[in-house]
Amino acid sequence: TGPQQGPLFEHAIEQIEPGEIALLLESLPIDERLERWEQVTPEAQVDVLVAMRAQARAAILRTLPEPVLTQLLGRVNAESLIELVDDLPESLVDDAVSRMSQNQRHWFEQASRYSDDQIGRYLNHDLVLLPPKIRAENALRALQRATEPFSDHAYMVDGQGRYLGMVSMKQLIALPPSQRLGDTTGSEIAPLQTASNLVDATEAVEHSGLAALPVVDEEGHLQGRITLQLALELTREAYESRLMATVGLDEETDLFSPVLQSSQRRAVWLGINLLTALLASWVIGQFEATLVQVVALAVLMPIVASMGGIAGSQTLTLVIRGLAMGQLSQGNLRALLAKELGVGLLNGLLWAGVIGAVAGLWFSDLATGLVMAVAIAINITVAALAGVAIPVILDRRKMDPALSGSVVLTTVTDVVGFFTFLGLGSLVLVS
Amino acid sequence: TGPQQGPLFEHAIEQIEPGEIALLLESLPIDERLERWEQVTPEAQVDVLVAMRAQARAAILRTLPEPVLTQLLGRVNAESLIELVDDLPESLVDDAVSRMSQNQRHWFEQASRYSDDQIGRYLNHDLVLLPPKIRAENALRALQRATEPFSDHAYMVDGQGRYLGMVSMKQLIALPPSQRLGDTTGSEIAPLQTASNLVDATEAVEHSGLAALPVVDEEGHLQGRITLQLALELTREAYESRLMATVGLDEETDLFSPVLQSSQRRAVWLGINLLTALLASWVIGQFEATLVQVVALAVLMPIVASMGGIAGSQTLTLVIRGLAMGQLSQGNLRALLAKELGVGLLNGLLWAGVIGAVAGLWFSDLATGLVMAVAIAINITVAALAGVAIPVILDRRKMDPALSGSVVLTTVTDVVGFFTFLGLGSLVLVS
Repeated sequence: TGPQQGPLFEHAIEQIEPGEIALLLESLPIDERLERWEQVTPEAQVDVLVAMRAQARAAILRTLPEPVLTQLLGRVNAESLIELVDDLPESLVDDAVSRMSQNQRHWFEQASRYSDDQIGRYLNHDLVLLPPKIRAENALRALQRATEPFSDHAYMVDGQGRYLGMVSMKQLIALPPSQRLGDTTGSEIAPLQTASNLVDATEAVEHSGLAALPVVDEEGHLQGRITLQLALELTREAYESRLMATVGLDEETDLFSPVLQSSQRRAVWLGINLLTALLASWVIGQFEATLVQVVALAVLMPIVASMGGIAGSQTLTLVIRGLAMGQLSQGNLRALLAKELGVGLLNGLLWAGVIGAVAGLWFSDLATGLVMAVAIAINITVAALAGVAIPVILDRRKMDPALSGSVVLTTVTDVVGFFTFLGLGSLVLVS
Repeated sequence: TGPQQGPLFEHAIEQIEPGEIALLLESLPIDERLERWEQVTPEAQVDVLVAMRAQARAAILRTLPEPVLTQLLGRVNAESLIELVDDLPESLVDDAVSRMSQNQRHWFEQASRYSDDQIGRYLNHDLVLLPPKIRAENALRALQRATEPFSDHAYMVDGQGRYLGMVSMKQLIALPPSQRLGDTTGSEIAPLQTASNLVDATEAVEHSGLAALPVVDEEGHLQGRITLQLALELTREAYESRLMATVGLDEETDLFSPVLQSSQRRAVWLGINLLTALLASWVIGQFEATLVQVVALAVLMPIVASMGGIAGSQTLTLVIRGLAMGQLSQGNLRALLAKELGVGLLNGLLWAGVIGAVAGLWFSDLATGLVMAVAIAINITVAALAGVAIPVILDRRKMDPALSGSVVLTTVTDVVGFFTFLGLGSLVLVS
């Protein structure tokens, strides 16, 4: 495998930066991945691991003997360790923390206080910090010495580390060299809170027009910053999560995780789906007698369920997007429901007509066509209602609508579809 | 509607920036949206329109009389006009272009040359340009005067506008004031190409550690730059597109587009789905005689199709992600197929056992359980194969696998599922 990626990789590995090496390693089957991993320079190894998806990374970490891991973590910083912490034995993490500088250990402990969806967990700590009494010329010198990306700004903090303000290189050049920073007014940039959720924090930095925003804790201590680069990375991960959640997987899923491991994770989702499919079958089972008499119902029933499922998932996807962007509130929910019901009714009637006609002609029976038409109209309308209600209710109960929304929706559209169609069929078509 | 968003909005509209006003406007039903639109300050209106999704924006533009539109476009720049161009009457666009400065008109014409998925269409033109013979002190002064976001870098161009290099404020401060820029070496930042696709361009700027990268055309003329902010916006739009494509919608879909308009767009997708559902029904129809004899088959058949669909869409989603990130090539395709077939076989056998047992007990018939088990095993395995093959083939034919992948996949799993199950049933269960 991989004859074409080999030379590309060897050429690339010395030129490109860790994020791209990570993408390349992820695209390789595991045995080949381990081979290539050896070629990554020791200086880049930690950064490459951090940039990889958890499962792809774990496949490498699993194979590394403890002394190699210890060495790898020799100079790991707080930001990197917090990303790797779930894939490492606790003893190695403790060991790495104990060897950190006091500062790094502090950042690591702070980051550990926050959950996966709070910005406090992911902060960048490559900041230029200045006391308010520093003179402009010295502040400028400090910024010039800084080699971190996006270091055209410095942050003022008091003796207790509380955030006082932000100052740019541009502003510093314009100040009289001997002026003390604390005496100037500086840019009035409101800092973000460590407890903010990722969506709010990434939007704030995107809309700020700055390359980074400072982040403070509840007491106003400067804890770090969120750069646009970090915002882009977090945004991508959030979307990948939503995309993968629709099929019961997570963002960390590896293209080449071992067959057994992949099978286990996917089996859970298949099992959940089986329960809903069994429920739908149970509904069908209630109409066995009808099906024996009118076999056309058995032939046509998947169409009813399928059209409802498709219409419902269109609404569902639109509503989940609205929820993710914070665009849905009590205030516009009723208007949205009214609009979606309108769309559902219109499409319900349209397709009821089309499908009813097709079914009636196919089985040369007007009544069959009518039953089909009514069932389609009802199911598409119910699907619109469910497509709005299900994600909103899940969201209020703090469940992820991207993950469980489609299963619940399909259950509703299957059950309603089969029940309406076969129920109507029993009433109208059975003599 | 919207009693709670009213005050929030009025409070917000003066404080917040266009991107957030756009999000708020999009979250309002259309009549209310038009009302609130009046409150947006004239200076912010164009930026707000640009930040809105096309359909939500069109709902506003449609209601504005021509003189208001003309005034609105009075000082529109190239970047904004290129975003709005599809929603405006051609005469108004021509008029706006004719009133642009020569520079802006040039940028507009350049941007128009590129397609939706090329970075040349979206470039930011707020650059500080410097000739190579300028002295460091004057260059520094030029950068200080610049008020655009991310203007801690300037770009050197020759008399023909060809890109020569990039220089940062930090580098300029370190230079002797009278040194000419052309005599220094500057940072060796390779520019991007206008014809690059969006994924490559956004990744390049993300990994550069810089807030923006210069972009040149085929002849090396500097055409603009891509900032991290732009990269974030383009990334979000790309993901929104993929998410919406899974239900046959596009990223520009408005939460509150008029019922008739929404219905039309969604009807197309429902129609396509109907064709695949009819095909599945036709397959079932071939086994009418069997179904009349063994009604258990009618009860159980949706389970077979459903399990195949779910298993297939897991593989499909994983493969589409790999394609979108450029992680799939001839080199690793076979390994991926082998792995997915392994997962399919394993889960196929597992769930064949479970479902076969359930079906056998439910209908107290070993043969029914066996037929069910074999059909499930076959359909889940075929689904894995299809989940890899379909998106790869679509991608090679330049069709978007995120859009059409799931329809094609469902067709395959439905047809294979029903055919295998009912076919086996006919052979084994019919006496």
